[in-house]
Amino acid sequence: MSSTAGGAIVQVAGTRGPVLIIGVGLLGGSLGLSLTALGIEVQLSDTSPTSLALARDMGVGVPRTQDMALPRLVIIATPPDVAGACAVEALRDYPQAYVVDVASVKTPVIQEVIDQAGEDANRYCSCHPMAGREKSGVAAARSDLFEGKPWVVVAHPSTSGDAVLAARTLGVDVGAVLSALDMDAHDKAVALVSHVPQLLSSILGAQLNDAPSVSLALAGQGLRDMTRLADSDARLWTAIVCGNAGPIAAVLKDISADIAALIQACELAEGAGVLAQGTVGPVSAVLQQGNEGVSRVPGKHGGLASRFAEVGVLVPDEPGWLGRLFSEVGDAGVNIEDLHLEHSYGQRAGIATLSIAPADVDPMTEHLLAAGWRIVE
Amino acid sequence: MSSTAGGAIVQVAGTRGPVLIIGVGLLGGSLGLSLTALGIEVQLSDTSPTSLALARDMGVGVPRTQDMALPRLVIIATPPDVAGACAVEALRDYPQAYVVDVASVKTPVIQEVIDQAGEDANRYCSCHPMAGREKSGVAAARSDLFEGKPWVVVAHPSTSGDAVLAARTLGVDVGAVLSALDMDAHDKAVALVSHVPQLLSSILGAQLNDAPSVSLALAGQGLRDMTRLADSDARLWTAIVCGNAGPIAAVLKDISADIAALIQACELAEGAGVLAQGTVGPVSAVLQQGNEGVSRVPGKHGGLASRFAEVGVLVPDEPGWLGRLFSEVGDAGVNIEDLHLEHSYGQRAGIATLSIAPADVDPMTEHLLAAGWRIVE
Repeated sequence: MSSTAGGAIVQVAGTRGPVLIIGVGLLGGSLGLSLTALGIEVQLSDTSPTSLALARDMGVGVPRTQDMALPRLVIIATPPDVAGACAVEALRDYPQAYVVDVASVKTPVIQEVIDQAGEDANRYCSCHPMAGREKSGVAAARSDLFEGKPWVVVAHPSTSGDAVLAARTLGVDVGAVLSALDMDAHDKAVALVSHVPQLLSSILGAQLNDAPSVSLALAGQGLRDMTRLADSDARLWTAIVCGNAGPIAAVLKDISADIAALIQACELAEGAGVLAQGTVGPVSAVLQQGNEGVSRVPGKHGGLASRFAEVGVLVPDEPGWLGRLFSEVGDAGVNIEDLHLEHSYGQRAGIATLSIAPADVDPMTEHLLAAGWRIVE
Repeated sequence: MSSTAGGAIVQVAGTRGPVLIIGVGLLGGSLGLSLTALGIEVQLSDTSPTSLALARDMGVGVPRTQDMALPRLVIIATPPDVAGACAVEALRDYPQAYVVDVASVKTPVIQEVIDQAGEDANRYCSCHPMAGREKSGVAAARSDLFEGKPWVVVAHPSTSGDAVLAARTLGVDVGAVLSALDMDAHDKAVALVSHVPQLLSSILGAQLNDAPSVSLALAGQGLRDMTRLADSDARLWTAIVCGNAGPIAAVLKDISADIAALIQACELAEGAGVLAQGTVGPVSAVLQQGNEGVSRVPGKHGGLASRFAEVGVLVPDEPGWLGRLFSEVGDAGVNIEDLHLEHSYGQRAGIATLSIAPADVDPMTEHLLAAGWRIVE
């Protein structure tokens, strides 16, 4: 599973030098595990002695001391609200090093470095690995966190070619899939695909606080999917949202306008009747636009979501059945691209929905039916 | 898997009489399959000859003709915008029958029956089986659709005891889990747990239409979860939303107020800086309230979501691996309560997150590690 490009950072830096990671949370810890596995010397720094000790014990790296060799690459993996200041400090403290940050907001961080670091800013290149989880902290770190995940390099105009190369090489070394965006495009993109979805999930989750339990007992998979993100770390996400405030506000305004139109249509429907002019149209429009928009979300491996076919199989809620099902599917030579197990309140059986290549649907279905499985769609 | 309560409807009706299903879409078709499997005579009616023929060929029941025995129970399974009128007609046409509807909106349907059917309304009892899918139409029908799903009986004040019993018996016969709510409580509950989540997903999906492809390539599991519902049938959902307009508008107004507060905080953060008064507080508040609200959503079997522990296992993207994993888990005697396979853009390996009983975590982890699996959290 590991990348074979280990050691490439060394070529960029020109000498075999260590990497310093400042901030050992989920991202910093995972980077340390991954780089250590590649044989790179990893030094660590963190304001929390407990996190630092835990990271050391997990094999993330070694806490940096004054007598150690100077780092050739410094990775800022602190919360986004201090990433800019930490990068400026690192550029000053380590004049031979390239400095990258991996914060999920870019404009305020990069702007702070440009404003404060002067010429040193040419040794700095910002990155955004899209590899978050609901869990945070170094305890959740893992060496394969970045495997196959997007790694966006966000250079600023004065970033040197070597600094860009250092940032790209780091992404390749940890197994990520590289792309490049400028600050503005990046911030708009993540507002739409990451930050606003998080906020909508939280807002919907917040609505549940005042609901009677009997209402919540009617919840199905839809509400569960829509509120999964609402479980995320509130402190970290507060910093992320505040750090990308402008682009988030722009998306929220569009959404707010759609909601206002829906409220107006609903109030008309309630007062003047469902078939009054101006009721059905706005409701239908948002539902249809939703159909169209969701079809644009790419599936995994860069393919379109619609490239896979879905087949539902009834699975009793007992140990081992799921294993037997997937063994059968494997026997049929079929690769499961994605799967989802649906279970609702009080339900004693589940439906495993398998995403597979359309060409595999008939042979797999035949194979499963012959083996006594029940196909449900 | 089948309920053993088959035939109970017959006792309620006092004689062995057939069931007529009006509207053979997903719900009507699934009810017909389920009742037919219990040995009950099922008659069908639908405005679409094609749907009717398909339902007959699928074994849902037999299209009703004049020479058939009169039904003792009529189930209205039409779209919600015509369910009230169909129920009124059925009460008039079949004066010996109990009439139930299974529409997902209640107040306008029930009100129409009360207003139009006079005394006949005492033979009418409304129901709401919470068993929707993204798919619709009789082709997606299945006999186990209602197994273990919530079935809400929504009687009105003049519903007779026998009519309530007929509605309850139907729910039990198809294997659902029964509860009872009055109209208002039902409509508020489904607005919150079903209709508004659908609209938020559609609204978010609609935002994706104008986004550059490069933005969408950064989409992770969060956006996919949040836009899954946006794929639902736009015409059906337009009728559902318009039919529950009042309670939906009330929830949307609360959400709109939260969004307005977020926009204000984001604009302050952008103008006066992240640490200006009034920026961090509103953002943090909604994220924290989301954390609290989502913890109230019950897990399956009526338990709390937090009763299960999650364990992540790295699975290569090749045929058969998943099967071997689940066989191992079964060998360890552990029941998988829920699972989720995470895959992102360009990724070559997946992480299967297994929800299991907390007491099973240590033995299962030990078993899997001994068998060479990689545990990722």
